[in-house]
Amino acid sequence: MQFTARDISFLLNGTVEGDASATVNRLAKIEEATEGALSFLANPKYESFLYTTGASVVIVNKDQVLASPVSATLVRVENAYSSFAVLLEKYNALKLNKTGIEQPSFIHPTAKIGGNAYVGAFAYVGPGVTVGDNCKIYPNTFIADNVTLGNNVTLFPGVTVYFDCVLGNNVIIHSGTIIGADGFGFAPNADGSYNKIAQIGNVVIEDDVEIGSNTTVDRATMGSTVIRKGVKLDNLVQIAHNVEVGANTVVAAQTGISGSTKIGERVVLGGQVGVVGHITIANGTQVQAQSGVSRVIKEENKPWMGSPAAPYKDHMRSQVVFQRLPELEKRIQELEKIIAELNKNQGN
Amino acid sequence: MQFTARDISFLLNGTVEGDASATVNRLAKIEEATEGALSFLANPKYESFLYTTGASVVIVNKDQVLASPVSATLVRVENAYSSFAVLLEKYNALKLNKTGIEQPSFIHPTAKIGGNAYVGAFAYVGPGVTVGDNCKIYPNTFIADNVTLGNNVTLFPGVTVYFDCVLGNNVIIHSGTIIGADGFGFAPNADGSYNKIAQIGNVVIEDDVEIGSNTTVDRATMGSTVIRKGVKLDNLVQIAHNVEVGANTVVAAQTGISGSTKIGERVVLGGQVGVVGHITIANGTQVQAQSGVSRVIKEENKPWMGSPAAPYKDHMRSQVVFQRLPELEKRIQELEKIIAELNKNQGN
Amino acid sequence: MQFTARDISFLLNGTVEGDASATVNRLAKIEEATEGALSFLANPKYESFLYTTGASVVIVNKDQVLASPVSATLVRVENAYSSFAVLLEKYNALKLNKTGIEQPSFIHPTAKIGGNAYVGAFAYVGPGVTVGDNCKIYPNTFIADNVTLGNNVTLFPGVTVYFDCVLGNNVIIHSGTIIGADGFGFAPNADGSYNKIAQIGNVVIEDDVEIGSNTTVDRATMGSTVIRKGVKLDNLVQIAHNVEVGANTVVAAQTGISGSTKIGERVVLGGQVGVVGHITIANGTQVQAQSGVSRVIKEENKPWMGSPAAPYKDHMRSQVVFQRLPELEKRIQELEKIIAELNKNQGN
Repeated sequence: MQFTARDISFLLNGTVEGDASATVNRLAKIEEATEGALSFLANPKYESFLYTTGASVVIVNKDQVLASPVSATLVRVENAYSSFAVLLEKYNALKLNKTGIEQPSFIHPTAKIGGNAYVGAFAYVGPGVTVGDNCKIYPNTFIADNVTLGNNVTLFPGVTVYFDCVLGNNVIIHSGTIIGADGFGFAPNADGSYNKIAQIGNVVIEDDVEIGSNTTVDRATMGSTVIRKGVKLDNLVQIAHNVEVGANTVVAAQTGISGSTKIGERVVLGGQVGVVGHITIANGTQVQAQSGVSRVIKEENKPWMGSPAAPYKDHMRSQVVFQRLPELEKRIQELEKIIAELNKNQGN
Repeated sequence: MQFTARDISFLLNGTVEGDASATVNRLAKIEEATEGALSFLANPKYESFLYTTGASVVIVNKDQVLASPVSATLVRVENAYSSFAVLLEKYNALKLNKTGIEQPSFIHPTAKIGGNAYVGAFAYVGPGVTVGDNCKIYPNTFIADNVTLGNNVTLFPGVTVYFDCVLGNNVIIHSGTIIGADGFGFAPNADGSYNKIAQIGNVVIEDDVEIGSNTTVDRATMGSTVIRKGVKLDNLVQIAHNVEVGANTVVAAQTGISGSTKIGERVVLGGQVGVVGHITIANGTQVQAQSGVSRVIKEENKPWMGSPAAPYKDHMRSQVVFQRLPELEKRIQELEKIIAELNKNQGN
Repeated sequence: MQFTARDISFLLNGTVEGDASATVNRLAKIEEATEGALSFLANPKYESFLYTTGASVVIVNKDQVLASPVSATLVRVENAYSSFAVLLEKYNALKLNKTGIEQPSFIHPTAKIGGNAYVGAFAYVGPGVTVGDNCKIYPNTFIADNVTLGNNVTLFPGVTVYFDCVLGNNVIIHSGTIIGADGFGFAPNADGSYNKIAQIGNVVIEDDVEIGSNTTVDRATMGSTVIRKGVKLDNLVQIAHNVEVGANTVVAAQTGISGSTKIGERVVLGGQVGVVGHITIANGTQVQAQSGVSRVIKEENKPWMGSPAAPYKDHMRSQVVFQRLPELEKRIQELEKIIAELNKNQGN
């Protein structure tokens, strides 16, 4: 793949400044780029690299002022960051352009596979499965009975989708992620042992959801565990049975959400956060990493922190004092001494 | 699948109240059920739905008093909750009734597979493996040399069992779980590098254990990592080498137990709990989510919380004050001011 | 496999004390060993077992003094612990000695496989992949386009390596671990939805790295996520995009490192630790389990604890007071009462 500054400018609806025939064949960070590389400048902190970079072409914001001469060809665009993201995406799409059915794979005769699909070797598509158009089902993936996949779904190698689950359009699931395993439900017996409570619901994942690797989303006991449109889940996340995650919510790695909890829209959960079961988290809530949310959050768009989580500022104020606790105790001791002295003086 | 109220009553040893020929073909929650659905009422909080539900048949406790007329046919049983669990289980068993050997799969000639087994495509059963009767080995599962599986074992897709491990009867392991990978053991060298300490033990999982998805149970350095009868492990749990988890203990998602620790019977560990290595946790101990257990717990049946974990009430008392630390500091400042004043007045 | 004390002594460059023809066929802990077992004594705490053990042969340090008669044959060596580790390693190597290409497997015609390789059934080796000599690629493993593996690499069953990643020599990766899935990068839109930022970098894993099971190491946005020589990662660890982990660093289970963070050499991170993104951690830093590192650590070789992490001793001092907070508050109340009294007496 080789492109000129002119090609890129055309693609991004930009304007060229410098040699329009400058050629690039790869993408690189501005501070690391060498000849033949395409780079971008969006963060003003990196501006100095613009004057020293070895990149052949650099994408910049259209109003970028030059403090010194630049040897690279510039492509000026409305928004350098998002333009570069567009290029990255196109580059990646070229990498991930497999189609066709590799052998040996297992596609049940009753499964329906849409047009332009990729089904990798050792992939398993069970009875009654429906796969939309332009789907990529990588090797070692397992899709159980009666699962439905929308269009443009990508399941990377080793994804497992249990029976009856439903995935919308443009869903991306990375390797090792398990959709629809049994929720963790057991009824205690008098002798201390447990009976399994069968989990007969499913998981519904709406459009434009991306899920990282080795994440687990359990099926509902009854009804559905639901991941709404546009949600992004990172790696090693745990979503328990009957949870609902609201649209465009983002969940960082190693966070866990307990059963039947309902997370609002546009919520951001940091890494290693825990959320107890059977509660509701308001839209726009932000929870700092490692926090533990133990009760309902009703007010929207507030930041929370700590375990148990408290409003961010309250927690930070307590945390600051926590770090001075030994000093605080000394001050109390000092007061006790003085008061004992005062009392003595007063003859008490 | 279609059943009448009479069929269900017969199955559950109950009595019918209303139209015994009412027919159902699916299960649903009482608050969501529509015609043709079977539901149940166990929790008094949901009683109001009994009078408004669209379900055709509802299972209730035999002593349920009716405050209003009910349109659904009732099946009265000893315990509505456990009766419904029985039905769920039967429903699920119908879903998971695969048998036979799918092709292509890999079964080593020296492996022994019991009667009525399911071995999915792309499953791998290594040399010397013994599989009991009625086992279900789903696609993409790997069973290494000399592993032994009891009867009625279910390994969902993508489970890996390393060599020499032993699984009892009725064990269920969900997708992506790894049994018997090497424990994390390294001996430091003078130059800062490490030598691997070979892990030559195994994992023993006793009867009636269920393990969630993407959990890891490491093999022992020597001897066995042991998961006792009836233990339930949730998703993304880490069990290190030489750990022993006592009978009927329940471990919630994302919890980790470090090497050589011995967890008692009927212990409940919440989610994201950490337990240090080489300690013992008494029977019946309950540990709140996100706690960190850093020392031996000798007294049985006590609740613990915090990181490091303290007795639950003690931790809660400290936690309450933690949230008022800024106020506490102000009170100390106030005292200091007053005392400085008093001292001045006394001419100190 | 059967060995005499003489064989073992020869192998370990030791000296025999007792019956040189004593025969062993397995390894066992000194406190559990029975006739025919080989054991070792390194930790003085276990010395008493030396006089009661059923082991036929025991490896001891050359300067071990005997307080009582010993029935087992002794093999005296420079360092009993490391000698035993050598034996364990040899024992294990005999267990994991598979070679050859099992069928059905998928090896793309453009892939190059080195000498003496094992490629298990249902393993997938993509186009342009290079595999060094003596590699073991277990069943259900996926190696994407243009991946490079050095010599003596072991990928246990179900490992996934995404395209363009590079693994050095002697790398061991346990089951279910995902190398090179997309980093978690999304650009927010005005309507609350997100655009995916394509992740076009790779993962580079240097020589002598071992990674546990179900761990995730994400590919860089651009450039490389780098795991330096000799690093050991435990199970369920999360390494985000563009992270660098320094040589000989050890990371315990369920720990997560956020994007672009640079961990120094010889760092030890306990279990369930979180490290925020875009920071640097100095060489030799030790972080206690469940801690959260939220800022740069510049000073080398220091221990840290807490969330947010503070220097170990500082945190412990605060933690000790935390546990006495209710008492502290009472002391303040007491002071307030006395002072109110004093004030009254002074007529204030």
